Amino acid sequence: MAKHKRSRKTGLPPGSLIHVGIKHTDIPIISLLDYNKTRLTEKTVTLVEECYPYKNQPTVTWINVDGVHDAETIEKMGKHFGFHPLLLEDIMNTEQRPKVDDFDEFIFIIVKMLNYPIKGGELAIEQVSFILGKNFVISLQEEAKWDVFNSVRERLRKGKGKIRNLGPDYLAYSLLDAVVDNYFSVLEKIAEEVEDLEEEVIGNPGPATIQNIHQLKQKLIHLRKSVWPLREVIGSLERSESKLIKKSTELYLRDVYDHAVQIIDNVETYMEMLAGITDIYLSSLSNKMNEVMKVLTIIGTIFIPLTFIVGVYGMNFDYMPELNWEYGYFVTMGIMLVISVIMLYYFRRKKWI
Amino acid sequence: MAKHKRSRKTGLPPGSLIHVGIKHTDIPIISLLDYNKTRLTEKTVTLVEECYPYKNQPTVTWINVDGVHDAETIEKMGKHFGFHPLLLEDIMNTEQRPKVDDFDEFIFIIVKMLNYPIKGGELAIEQVSFILGKNFVISLQEEAKWDVFNSVRERLRKGKGKIRNLGPDYLAYSLLDAVVDNYFSVLEKIAEEVEDLEEEVIGNPGPATIQNIHQLKQKLIHLRKSVWPLREVIGSLERSESKLIKKSTELYLRDVYDHAVQIIDNVETYMEMLAGITDIYLSSLSNKMNEVMKVLTIIGTIFIPLTFIVGVYGMNFDYMPELNWEYGYFVTMGIMLVISVIMLYYFRRKKWI
Amino acid sequence: MAKHKRSRKTGLPPGSLIHVGIKHTDIPIISLLDYNKTRLTEKTVTLVEECYPYKNQPTVTWINVDGVHDAETIEKMGKHFGFHPLLLEDIMNTEQRPKVDDFDEFIFIIVKMLNYPIKGGELAIEQVSFILGKNFVISLQEEAKWDVFNSVRERLRKGKGKIRNLGPDYLAYSLLDAVVDNYFSVLEKIAEEVEDLEEEVIGNPGPATIQNIHQLKQKLIHLRKSVWPLREVIGSLERSESKLIKKSTELYLRDVYDHAVQIIDNVETYMEMLAGITDIYLSSLSNKMNEVMKVLTIIGTIFIPLTFIVGVYGMNFDYMPELNWEYGYFVTMGIMLVISVIMLYYFRRKKWI
Amino acid sequence: MAKHKRSRKTGLPPGSLIHVGIKHTDIPIISLLDYNKTRLTEKTVTLVEECYPYKNQPTVTWINVDGVHDAETIEKMGKHFGFHPLLLEDIMNTEQRPKVDDFDEFIFIIVKMLNYPIKGGELAIEQVSFILGKNFVISLQEEAKWDVFNSVRERLRKGKGKIRNLGPDYLAYSLLDAVVDNYFSVLEKIAEEVEDLEEEVIGNPGPATIQNIHQLKQKLIHLRKSVWPLREVIGSLERSESKLIKKSTELYLRDVYDHAVQIIDNVETYMEMLAGITDIYLSSLSNKMNEVMKVLTIIGTIFIPLTFIVGVYGMNFDYMPELNWEYGYFVTMGIMLVISVIMLYYFRRKKWI
Amino acid sequence: MAKHKRSRKTGLPPGSLIHVGIKHTDIPIISLLDYNKTRLTEKTVTLVEECYPYKNQPTVTWINVDGVHDAETIEKMGKHFGFHPLLLEDIMNTEQRPKVDDFDEFIFIIVKMLNYPIKGGELAIEQVSFILGKNFVISLQEEAKWDVFNSVRERLRKGKGKIRNLGPDYLAYSLLDAVVDNYFSVLEKIAEEVEDLEEEVIGNPGPATIQNIHQLKQKLIHLRKSVWPLREVIGSLERSESKLIKKSTELYLRDVYDHAVQIIDNVETYMEMLAGITDIYLSSLSNKMNEVMKVLTIIGTIFIPLTFIVGVYGMNFDYMPELNWEYGYFVTMGIMLVISVIMLYYFRRKKWI
Repeated sequence: MAKHKRSRKTGLPPGSLIHVGIKHTDIPIISLLDYNKTRLTEKTVTLVEECYPYKNQPTVTWINVDGVHDAETIEKMGKHFGFHPLLLEDIMNTEQRPKVDDFDEFIFIIVKMLNYPIKGGELAIEQVSFILGKNFVISLQEEAKWDVFNSVRERLRKGKGKIRNLGPDYLAYSLLDAVVDNYFSVLEKIAEEVEDLEEEVIGNPGPATIQNIHQLKQKLIHLRKSVWPLREVIGSLERSESKLIKKSTELYLRDVYDHAVQIIDNVETYMEMLAGITDIYLSSLSNKMNEVMKVLTIIGTIFIPLTFIVGVYGMNFDYMPELNWEYGYFVTMGIMLVISVIMLYYFRRKKWI
Repeated sequence: MAKHKRSRKTGLPPGSLIHVGIKHTDIPIISLLDYNKTRLTEKTVTLVEECYPYKNQPTVTWINVDGVHDAETIEKMGKHFGFHPLLLEDIMNTEQRPKVDDFDEFIFIIVKMLNYPIKGGELAIEQVSFILGKNFVISLQEEAKWDVFNSVRERLRKGKGKIRNLGPDYLAYSLLDAVVDNYFSVLEKIAEEVEDLEEEVIGNPGPATIQNIHQLKQKLIHLRKSVWPLREVIGSLERSESKLIKKSTELYLRDVYDHAVQIIDNVETYMEMLAGITDIYLSSLSNKMNEVMKVLTIIGTIFIPLTFIVGVYGMNFDYMPELNWEYGYFVTMGIMLVISVIMLYYFRRKKWI
Repeated sequence: MAKHKRSRKTGLPPGSLIHVGIKHTDIPIISLLDYNKTRLTEKTVTLVEECYPYKNQPTVTWINVDGVHDAETIEKMGKHFGFHPLLLEDIMNTEQRPKVDDFDEFIFIIVKMLNYPIKGGELAIEQVSFILGKNFVISLQEEAKWDVFNSVRERLRKGKGKIRNLGPDYLAYSLLDAVVDNYFSVLEKIAEEVEDLEEEVIGNPGPATIQNIHQLKQKLIHLRKSVWPLREVIGSLERSESKLIKKSTELYLRDVYDHAVQIIDNVETYMEMLAGITDIYLSSLSNKMNEVMKVLTIIGTIFIPLTFIVGVYGMNFDYMPELNWEYGYFVTMGIMLVISVIMLYYFRRKKWI
Repeated sequence: MAKHKRSRKTGLPPGSLIHVGIKHTDIPIISLLDYNKTRLTEKTVTLVEECYPYKNQPTVTWINVDGVHDAETIEKMGKHFGFHPLLLEDIMNTEQRPKVDDFDEFIFIIVKMLNYPIKGGELAIEQVSFILGKNFVISLQEEAKWDVFNSVRERLRKGKGKIRNLGPDYLAYSLLDAVVDNYFSVLEKIAEEVEDLEEEVIGNPGPATIQNIHQLKQKLIHLRKSVWPLREVIGSLERSESKLIKKSTELYLRDVYDHAVQIIDNVETYMEMLAGITDIYLSSLSNKMNEVMKVLTIIGTIFIPLTFIVGVYGMNFDYMPELNWEYGYFVTMGIMLVISVIMLYYFRRKKWI
Repeated sequence: MAKHKRSRKTGLPPGSLIHVGIKHTDIPIISLLDYNKTRLTEKTVTLVEECYPYKNQPTVTWINVDGVHDAETIEKMGKHFGFHPLLLEDIMNTEQRPKVDDFDEFIFIIVKMLNYPIKGGELAIEQVSFILGKNFVISLQEEAKWDVFNSVRERLRKGKGKIRNLGPDYLAYSLLDAVVDNYFSVLEKIAEEVEDLEEEVIGNPGPATIQNIHQLKQKLIHLRKSVWPLREVIGSLERSESKLIKKSTELYLRDVYDHAVQIIDNVETYMEMLAGITDIYLSSLSNKMNEVMKVLTIIGTIFIPLTFIVGVYGMNFDYMPELNWEYGYFVTMGIMLVISVIMLYYFRRKKWI
């Protein structure tokens, strides 16, 4: 997988179709779902030209493109559907910030789709673009392996819910809703990781703990970077006066908006909890140091004076009266015992042992 | 009690009635209070159908549902009263953010009710939904064991205050007021805990202190997460131009709004106080370490040189003139005493002892 | 002095007159000042009924009530003057946030009055409510012992300034101005305490320093909690379009508003200075530890090797050639001296001594 | 220089002319500059009455007053020119926050003038008030020794620039511009101090470093306190719709506004840099401690076991076979050498030496 | 390269053309590009007068000036084109904050151009001013060696894109876009440095690490200082109602605006990551200290008691029964071994080794 840097674009005229990001697949895969109340056609398309007829059909068409690195495909499609070059450029630059642009004839939406398959693993962020037209929705993803739209596909195929009765704006909402819903499952995994870290930091903190905290914080920073603008996107869709979005759909968008706000709330809460966990970790370091120091101090404070005393009676002066005293040895040992006991008592009173 | 995760909902069409949260009871318990100025009927209902007649009666009806996990009950009620599926979905998803939605015919309110029975215990957060209609209020809670509405029930039964003379908007206000009033008693307990922690951190801080601070901060974070949106909810109710809320009730809502602002103020103050307490705790760790180090240093600094001196006269050189001197031993002991005294004086001047 | 908790009110209908706060006096003391340009009557009233006639007199009347715990007095007064029950409830709940409510017929203002008699002592916060009517001002305080209105009383009595020529709005402004002016004297004391702390932390920091910082910060937090909403109160009075406030008084309110902003500015500055002082304190702890550690290290590093050397020549091996050498003792002593000197030189280069 | 505290004013009626601040001079010095395109008169005035005729002359008059502590002068001037008592009060209270008040007939401006003659010295803040009338500007400063207006005086005298052709609003702008320009030279000195501190903290941090950081931060806090409201002042002058400010002058005010924003930007940048410097300082303390501890540990770890070994062979047991062995001494010395080498190697691998 | 300080300007009348900043070149270099759809003229001009004819030609003219320190050149140009003196002053003061000023006849834009050739090197910030007129764009840079406009020049020469077909507003947009695009390549280098630092701090942190963090943070602070106002500049250009900016160009400006927001997002993210890295670094210091202390404590705790024991049997008392016991020596050695083993076991249980 080749990573194309943003700097490839430096100096090119606006609307230059240059891919920025990781190239996941070789050939873009285009799948097509065309439906109305009564019937549904589904096919995978090899040539972009096969999508052309669906531009003006009365049925609702959902064209899903997996792979946005191929300038030719994007350009052809853009020319046929009449998309602005800047829009096409944004599709291919996968480091865009989530945003919504209203080009009277269609609405262009960029959001981030998260993939977080295993707890503690890497958080993959994939850019998804939507173009909502009068009777079609085009969605463009970076790669084919994985997306969050299967449930929408199922509902379309089975005619479950009212999705088949409603227009492309409801389809676009359903896709956005699927993206946002997926944020919740990512958040649930992260919530568990926060709890694990909390236990780790209280029970058994080690030098790696701070790195775990850091990695989790990193994930939250990236999540937040995706979800804050997402909220704006959905909010301005809801308030939009575009004729492409029906009144009845606005209520649903309001619902997704509430979810986005809830996700932001949770992200901020986890951020604050991580800050608290960091505090506990740092103070546990200090506590540990205190404990180590206490042991050293207790041992040192008891034995250093005793060692001095035995050193005294190890001196070789010719005249040291104690040495000749019969009970000298035993009395000295006794005195040292008394000193130790006094010291231990002192430490206990100081609550060091 | 089974915990249903938010991710159960992933991929389902909007308006799918799936419970999210902890399932507290088996069968939802529905109680019904129907009143006007002159009379009051109270009963517990087993079948949701029994509530149907009250939809259009001129009296004010308060229907309270304990347990929101049962999709069938919620759906039946929703169908009869004409609630939007998204509204029903929000009722069953108990991880909602407090919010208010104005559906012309009724106003839908979600708030969080706190339960904090014992100081230092767990802070339980329960979601309560209100639907305010033309002549009814429906309240839905997660569980039956506990709520904050008994005082409202009492006032209704006894006809105390003007509650019996006024419409369902005043009833809804009274219920909201009961919820907010309860925040104050939670805050009072937390205030005491903050004070206890302050004393602990000054008097006798231990390794568990930081965890206590962390737990209390956690509670405040959750409280804040409940009360900030609550303020918005009440604020937008007050400013709402819905015909369901009478002019005279707005003054009361303004009053609850002021309370919510006051609670936020207090939460932020406790947050700042906890930050200060953390600072004291961390500096007390450093102070303790300093104290330990000083003891070690004093003992070491006095005895290490002395031990060296006694070591010198423990050497076995054939020719060491001091050893043969009659007063050698006593003079050496004297010198060591003088050294000790000088050192102790030095430490006192440095304010170490 | 009995402390009534907020939770006493839990579950009572709105407008219930329940005192929250500390009960300072037994019987509320009501004093009355009635004046116009030419004459002034002053009396202390035992029965609240004596105030009734002043409701509609053309002169300006200032009724001051000391003690708000007595529901009966408050209720009687409220009934006669036609105050809303929620207003009366707010008067008796002394834990209100400063606020202003415009009830067409009168304006209701709550502010906090500070009492900080001695530097370093307790900061007492007392709630003062004002009701500004067409030709009267009612002020209600928690206790009789102390207030900041003596200067206003003096000016009224002596007819100093224009206070006697102007209406009740100017009187209300004068009372508010007295409250705000008092904040400045509190701030001056706190400024001195900040300076004292700064000196303490630089000159002679001890374990109690952090607690002093904490206590001062606490005071600033409480001050800020009083003064931020106070600014809003005065600001909305100034912008208010109530017919009770004359155009000419707005300029004076603008002046008090500027003072409130200035107080906030100072409070924030002191907060930042305290944060800086905390930093100095914490780094002084580290510096102290460093100093202690250096002494231990110097002593240890010099004597531990020397003690080893003397230990070597204290061994009892049969064959140790140095022991029999005539100058062995002196040479060993010399070598040890050289080692000490080298080490001291090394420490000086490292700037440890 | 007597310092008058704000509390002197407590309890006085509004508009009481009481000086707050430091009394710098004995008698206020009044200087007067009257000019039009063709001629310029300059004189120093002893009696405030001499200024009276200039109130209504068609020429532009700039009256500069040094010393605002003398109530009589201020009051006379105020009476003649028709200034509001609150305005006069604000002039004499030199602890005002920068502000602008529009009294139709004139605009009243308060700003802070900085004096920072030597790097590292005290930052003196002086209050300057401006009153811009139809054909005059009155400026009032706290003291006569120093101000930033000499360049404006020079330009007026020499007729440089267009200052002589334009009205009093341009003069007021020029004076404000001179005040703001002076902030830049203060900032340049502070920038150098920040750089010096950065070098100090990297090269040779000592216990005084944190105090230097603290003092510089204090200066920045005071600067910020002066410049944030200054920005508001100039901004509201620019947007003001007063007839006293000509359209053509607004462009110049916009320019000063940009400068004020730039100063704020720089102040905030220096604040952040100081925070960074504090971090470096604190971590340098930890690093130093680590270094000290390492030396102690290395010495201790090497010599403590060796001292134990020599202690063993200093025991006086009757039967210790090694003692009688001929090579015992040399072998023991060899073993100790080997232990030392192993330990040194271990420390090098740990990167301690 | 002489550095001219801002203070050179202090006291000069507004519109004084004084250079502030580093003087990079001796003579300003003026290059000129004049084009329409069909033809393009390019030349380097020695006398500013040669630009004069292009003021009113129907073709689009781009005049690029390298070097803004020469007051004469700037003044002549300004006089001919009719620029306001304040505008010229802003051009020569290279410490301006990015801003946009709309002078009906032309729009004046100041932005910052970054130069960051090598990773870890110095971040050079150069001021670029644009004046967009009816049919010309004048760009003024500080120095000739380097700029980001070569790609625009290429596109103009080759007639690539639509740049040749569109007006001066599109040219101005292209130049702004080139400046903003360049921020991305700077950010990419900084992103790599953040990653390097992260690795350094986890793998091998040293005393210099904190300085590297500090330096990178400094760069980010400067970047942020350039890019925040840049966003405002582009935003107000986009919303501007000037007749100089065509409707069709607004879409492009919106695109650059999005890029600016994205850059700000990234800068803030890197800031947060650096804060996290600082935390790791500081806790790694504590961990290191802990490790060092543990080694000292283990060695000390094991050997200090043993040294005491051997000291005991080194005493010279006449009567010490153990000394005469045949197995005394071996039993003592054995006891010491047992003590060591017990201690090692204790340390292992404490997880110190």
